[in-house]
Amino acid sequence: MSPHVAPRQVKVIGIGAGSPGHLTQEAIAALRSVDVFLVADKGAAKDELVSVRRALCAQFIDGIEGEDYRFLTVTDPVRGPDAERDDAAYQSGVADWHAARADRYADVIADLPDDAVVGFLVWGDPAFYDSTIRVVDAIGERLPIDMHVVPGISAFQALAAAHGIVLHAVGQPVHITTGRRLAAEWSPALGSVVVMLDGHLACQALVERAPDLVIHWGAYLGLPQQTLRSGRLADVIDDLIALRAELRAEHGWIMDVYLLSPS
Amino acid sequence: MSPHVAPRQVKVIGIGAGSPGHLTQEAIAALRSVDVFLVADKGAAKDELVSVRRALCAQFIDGIEGEDYRFLTVTDPVRGPDAERDDAAYQSGVADWHAARADRYADVIADLPDDAVVGFLVWGDPAFYDSTIRVVDAIGERLPIDMHVVPGISAFQALAAAHGIVLHAVGQPVHITTGRRLAAEWSPALGSVVVMLDGHLACQALVERAPDLVIHWGAYLGLPQQTLRSGRLADVIDDLIALRAELRAEHGWIMDVYLLSPS
Ligand SMILES: C[S@@+](CC[C@H](N)C(=O)[O-])C[C@H]1O[C@@H](n2cnc3c(N)ncnc32)[C@H](O)[C@@H]1O
Ligand SMILES: C[S@@+](CC[C@H](N)C(=O)[O-])C[C@H]1O[C@@H](n2cnc3c(N)ncnc32)[C@H](O)[C@@H]1O
Repeated sequence: MSPHVAPRQVKVIGIGAGSPGHLTQEAIAALRSVDVFLVADKGAAKDELVSVRRALCAQFIDGIEGEDYRFLTVTDPVRGPDAERDDAAYQSGVADWHAARADRYADVIADLPDDAVVGFLVWGDPAFYDSTIRVVDAIGERLPIDMHVVPGISAFQALAAAHGIVLHAVGQPVHITTGRRLAAEWSPALGSVVVMLDGHLACQALVERAPDLVIHWGAYLGLPQQTLRSGRLADVIDDLIALRAELRAEHGWIMDVYLLSPS
Repeated sequence: MSPHVAPRQVKVIGIGAGSPGHLTQEAIAALRSVDVFLVADKGAAKDELVSVRRALCAQFIDGIEGEDYRFLTVTDPVRGPDAERDDAAYQSGVADWHAARADRYADVIADLPDDAVVGFLVWGDPAFYDSTIRVVDAIGERLPIDMHVVPGISAFQALAAAHGIVLHAVGQPVHITTGRRLAAEWSPALGSVVVMLDGHLACQALVERAPDLVIHWGAYLGLPQQTLRSGRLADVIDDLIALRAELRAEHGWIMDVYLLSPS
């Protein structure tokens, strides 16, 4: 890698968790500065998420004098199933996949004009449960880049706002984790717990141990289908399981997040 | 309380953690819909924070056709010192203070025209370490209100973006807590830990137990004085203590937040 090559500018832009109203001033300015958006092609199942990104760009860039941009779709490397692996195997699987992704992106970026500003649009906040920053770090091992990150409203913030709640008890902590980890990790000492990336309401496993936990649940936050429920875990869990299955069937996909708090 | 009184509209608006660039589209729309901003008068020490709020309104509302608003300063009830109390005394002290504050705000709101939209501008995200939502809930016990919350970029998100990092290891949790609780609460099982509201770098207490923790620290995030440091906790703590004292002396105040991650 020659030290004389000027680093490529790469912007990792948090776009918020569903509503265009989540976009910050800084994100809008960053969108407008990008020449080429790189988008992972994850197949048809995720098409709706790609079209949300295109719509944001159309809304906030199109028609602005002198602003021009394009989307480049990069086919995502195939990733094995995670659910059954232990932590170490999971993490090395993820690392391999980041490396494979970084190879493809680095090739695409190397073919762009030197001064092209590259952008990645990240759902929610890039700081939470998203691989973009790690992949861009890996791209930086392949060619010189200058990464700039713009924070965005995360799903748990949209959840808190929609319910009109603070995420923790007064002066107490809040713990953010995944559905995969919840049952093994949970203890009352954690304080309030936010659960993301949960495909099957893993809080079911806590009903016997902690029936008095209060759940604040939200699906499709910031989107027209937004749906909220809350209540004592033991009282609402059955309805929630049924509702989640219905919504998923109705819309073909679901994204949900919830808070468990001590009562 | 008569059921015939239309509820007052109260907007709790997250303004982000320092930079006007953090303001979301939704926050700007909410700002513009407010007729009366209620601001706690916390005395001279916090004047800079009040002037940031006034500047935001000037920037995003002034000059917009037909938009008119005013600031109403409400003197804050006096609050005793927290540091030495145990958790229960701390929480009941906070509850008393919320009630005293709610009384004052309810009086002020009751004197406004029925259709006046009331707004509170909250630093960062109202979902984290801020009393506004709890106080507005308490106001709602005194007169009928309709609360609408707008999420904002929180200090830890500005921290992550400025350092260009994800807040947790791949697939692992992140725990958000206060300086007051850190030493007693910390354990490696928590994953990465964000520490807010820490007046004296409580992570000092962890250096012996966990010298290999990596710290990502940021002060005045999003502001012109923004200062970042990172490194192995045991290596950087002495410099950080000295730097924090210097910055505080130089600017007369400091706001800082940090992440502790397993190495
Ligand atoms: C891959 S993670 C991405 C998180 C994202 N970076 C953020 O900050 O929100 C996806 C998870 O975020 C949550 N999520 C994201 N957007 C959501 C929305 N609009 N409504 C409900 N949950 C959402 C769900 O828990 C989902 O499984
Ligand atoms: C009362 S809490 C308010 C938190 C706020 N609601 C949020 O979401 O960021 C104040 C604490 O937030 C952190 N903080 C807020 N703004 C900050 C900034 N611009 N730079 C560094 N830390 C900040 C500090 O830890 C500070 O002690």
